[in-house]
Amino acid sequence: MSELRKDFLTERWVVIAPERGMRPVEPTPEPEDDTGVRACPFCEGNEFMTPSEVLALRDHGEPNHRGWYVRVVPHKFPVLMVEGSAETHQLGVHSWMEGIGAHEVVIESPVHHEDLAFMAQEQVMRVIWAWQQRVEDLRQDRRFRHILVFRNHRTASGATLRHPHSQVVALPVIPQLVREELRGAQAYYEREGRCGFCDLLEEERGSRKRVVLETGHFVVVCGYAARFAYEVEIFPLTHAADYLGMPAEMRADLAQVLQRTLQAYRSALFNPPYNLVIQLAPSPVDEGEAALLSESFHWHISVMPHVSAPVGFEWGTEFYINPVAPEVAAAQLRQHVPS
Amino acid sequence: MSELRKDFLTERWVVIAPERGMRPVEPTPEPEDDTGVRACPFCEGNEFMTPSEVLALRDHGEPNHRGWYVRVVPHKFPVLMVEGSAETHQLGVHSWMEGIGAHEVVIESPVHHEDLAFMAQEQVMRVIWAWQQRVEDLRQDRRFRHILVFRNHRTASGATLRHPHSQVVALPVIPQLVREELRGAQAYYEREGRCGFCDLLEEERGSRKRVVLETGHFVVVCGYAARFAYEVEIFPLTHAADYLGMPAEMRADLAQVLQRTLQAYRSALFNPPYNLVIQLAPSPVDEGEAALLSESFHWHISVMPHVSAPVGFEWGTEFYINPVAPEVAAAQLRQHVPS
Repeated sequence: MSELRKDFLTERWVVIAPERGMRPVEPTPEPEDDTGVRACPFCEGNEFMTPSEVLALRDHGEPNHRGWYVRVVPHKFPVLMVEGSAETHQLGVHSWMEGIGAHEVVIESPVHHEDLAFMAQEQVMRVIWAWQQRVEDLRQDRRFRHILVFRNHRTASGATLRHPHSQVVALPVIPQLVREELRGAQAYYEREGRCGFCDLLEEERGSRKRVVLETGHFVVVCGYAARFAYEVEIFPLTHAADYLGMPAEMRADLAQVLQRTLQAYRSALFNPPYNLVIQLAPSPVDEGEAALLSESFHWHISVMPHVSAPVGFEWGTEFYINPVAPEVAAAQLRQHVPS
Repeated sequence: MSELRKDFLTERWVVIAPERGMRPVEPTPEPEDDTGVRACPFCEGNEFMTPSEVLALRDHGEPNHRGWYVRVVPHKFPVLMVEGSAETHQLGVHSWMEGIGAHEVVIESPVHHEDLAFMAQEQVMRVIWAWQQRVEDLRQDRRFRHILVFRNHRTASGATLRHPHSQVVALPVIPQLVREELRGAQAYYEREGRCGFCDLLEEERGSRKRVVLETGHFVVVCGYAARFAYEVEIFPLTHAADYLGMPAEMRADLAQVLQRTLQAYRSALFNPPYNLVIQLAPSPVDEGEAALLSESFHWHISVMPHVSAPVGFEWGTEFYINPVAPEVAAAQLRQHVPS
């Protein structure tokens, strides 16, 4: 029999309906963009094809030339622009503000055909370092309330170029799901005097039913009320509202946790398209909020593979049906995690 | 320049980013299921292939035999089952309940190759009548808090059979987006003493910038902060929390409004996959809630075509980027609405 489960922080209900069968989406050999090295703006040697870099980790060479490991550039077709004000305007019942923000691309490797799951671990550490640097820098701009770091794998997930890359978007507003999680986390903290995520991790690590993988610094779990089949969340074991203070040693651990998780996906689910989103606390508006956020929010990474077919009402309801019980997904992924 | 817009009820921010260009998804000739009449469980003559009907509008014949115009049957692979209790159980920090509910299919025509957009108007009226009947009946079961009526067009939207059909799902919980809209509508009503949707319609009908089509009973608008390109909402002009009292004359009007809207999609966007969801007030828990819902909520239909590519972070944030300004979408659709 299927079951309804409530996320303990966002209070969203999800249907866990295993007997529907997977209704799996074929892992199609999709028509990936594969223009190759010559026409790819992210390949080494083609630096002139992108806007000027805002950050690079280099072995040698000048800015916007060869010799880099990781390179961050403004998005050529940005969703939001840096100039403008974050003031809200009223227009009858409606409100709007200028589309201010930042939109950057983290080019994760100079090499076109690399894959985050299989790169040298050191290279993944550089990518994580860039993710940290850009958030730290963009936080200085007080107009931005929230900074998203995300990555799309394969075209079905939204990726338009094959060359491995992730994106950073700074927003003057807080996305809905983040807002809900924050609201739930703050309510939990005010009620219980503890971080809800820490309590969750204690339970999950105790039962181990939904744990995919655990290392010295991180644990990967399938959420009790996960919205998507095989969705996982990567949590640091130590409480922290964001990853800005993460030291190199922990970065190395995260690099291997990420790679082992993505390798398990590839092996268990045949290289599925996925979206990865890093969930960090937003920038606080004042000291009071800073204190509350740092106590109540616990940063994490969500990875959502595209493996089950939509029901058709998700867009209009934000109500989800997950055809694979998270316990089953975790057990299956565990068998595919490389040691 | 792009713009951030806030939905005045749900308070969600959306990016309206027209200069990103459409990034349109190809309206691919998709591999539709096309087993044809012989193997299709929804075709006339194949009534034995479905569970027994719960409702049918017939010209002649016995239940579960030929002679029907519209037929409603339980879903063969239901997401939720009728037996069980709506009691919430606690499990550590988690909560769950049995997967109770109803899941039905409204077979919209005995003919395999019909399309809701082009059927006889009288047939569409019968479909709407069935949508009304099933909601009215399922409402009697006090365990169900909300009843969803939705329809998926083409496989990319979740449709698995080509034969025209819609679905009815009764839930013991309220989906997130509905909950948010209700919360916003109630807050608006308590603040202003009026229905927020009625105020919205007055503004939209005044400016006409986002109006696609208006008849004696309905208006079709592209929402100010629409999440999806070319998304439209169909509102009754007269305030009502749900469509249960809708008379035959209004049903005829709705049938033509629906068909003209879907025909405009087909002509402007090349037969796009779409999801249609009917947003009705949930079942009230008591008289007080019944009164508040009937004053503050205004039923409507959302239609969301699949025409723009995902950005990749929507699943993890529920933050949306709409690449077509609703004013532009409305102007374009207006030119394609048949008179």
